[in-house]
Amino acid sequence: MRAGVKMDLKSTIRAIPDFPKKGIMFRDITTLLKNPDALKYSVKELADHFRAKDVDFVIGIESRGFIIAPLIAADYHCGFIPIRKVGKLPAKTIKHEYELEYGTDTIEIHFDAIRKGEKVLIVDDLLATGGTAEAAIKLVEKIGGEVAGLAFIVELDFLNGREKLGGHDVFSLVHYGSGDA
Amino acid sequence: MRAGVKMDLKSTIRAIPDFPKKGIMFRDITTLLKNPDALKYSVKELADHFRAKDVDFVIGIESRGFIIAPLIAADYHCGFIPIRKVGKLPAKTIKHEYELEYGTDTIEIHFDAIRKGEKVLIVDDLLATGGTAEAAIKLVEKIGGEVAGLAFIVELDFLNGREKLGGHDVFSLVHYGSGDA
Repeated sequence: MRAGVKMDLKSTIRAIPDFPKKGIMFRDITTLLKNPDALKYSVKELADHFRAKDVDFVIGIESRGFIIAPLIAADYHCGFIPIRKVGKLPAKTIKHEYELEYGTDTIEIHFDAIRKGEKVLIVDDLLATGGTAEAAIKLVEKIGGEVAGLAFIVELDFLNGREKLGGHDVFSLVHYGSGDA
Repeated sequence: MRAGVKMDLKSTIRAIPDFPKKGIMFRDITTLLKNPDALKYSVKELADHFRAKDVDFVIGIESRGFIIAPLIAADYHCGFIPIRKVGKLPAKTIKHEYELEYGTDTIEIHFDAIRKGEKVLIVDDLLATGGTAEAAIKLVEKIGGEVAGLAFIVELDFLNGREKLGGHDVFSLVHYGSGDA
């Protein structure tokens, strides 16, 4: 890809009907990740969007956020920090519980991962209902960090996830509506 | 870091006693991942070791393998492929069950992820007993792929994991013995 040329990322993402349950059209980015040009382009576009924020760290949300976040961190030459499902991080953590469609889930971050005032970019593969991303913002803010923005490969516009992330710079590379093929 | 200068990676990894259970000294690489020089150095060292193998894809094992594998893939400008815990991959998969200390675990890969004869590098953060890495090799071979090698940040030598990976090129950046601080 030459600089400035837009790549058709949607053509590298495949749709899997009825996963994880009937009626859901799952956007499978494993085909994007297998394509070195698409992977490089995605990372560059996300990194460029937030470059002026001059972030201190890039945070990835387990598990698929772990794939993209370190690539953006490497582009910035800054460190990577994981937000994980509960019970996986070995040192002292703080937790945040959030609601799912049925029940709740909890994510956590190392208590000493971020110092007061440090700026972070939060990265995940997919913005759906926004529950996990909102919980990640709360975790960062609980330990005094500043959220410079949130980056996603895919956004499901019809789930209105970005409404939960009000006031933050939210940037997604690919958008889907509810009736999209 | 200048080229050819060895970095003391151990000094960037912290030891957490009694995690995940009493008597285990957990090697926490989140402090390495937060350090941009250590992260860059680790990726470069692993990528350099296997560069001559000219691999087609780099595979990361969920979850922490997802952090390092895409960085090596980006260095090679090749694609990334995930091996995941069961039930997470949306398209047709093949599975491999393996034994844990108590019970079993299952990992899977997309059936169409690798074509016959394609060469892959398998990446995870830690080589302990080798059960997961051995299962990853079997998955790749079941779908006709060729394992060019296995790359790890940390190897716990006293668990003899590499004995399970016989015949393959296994390379780890940092080694620990059973009595190490």
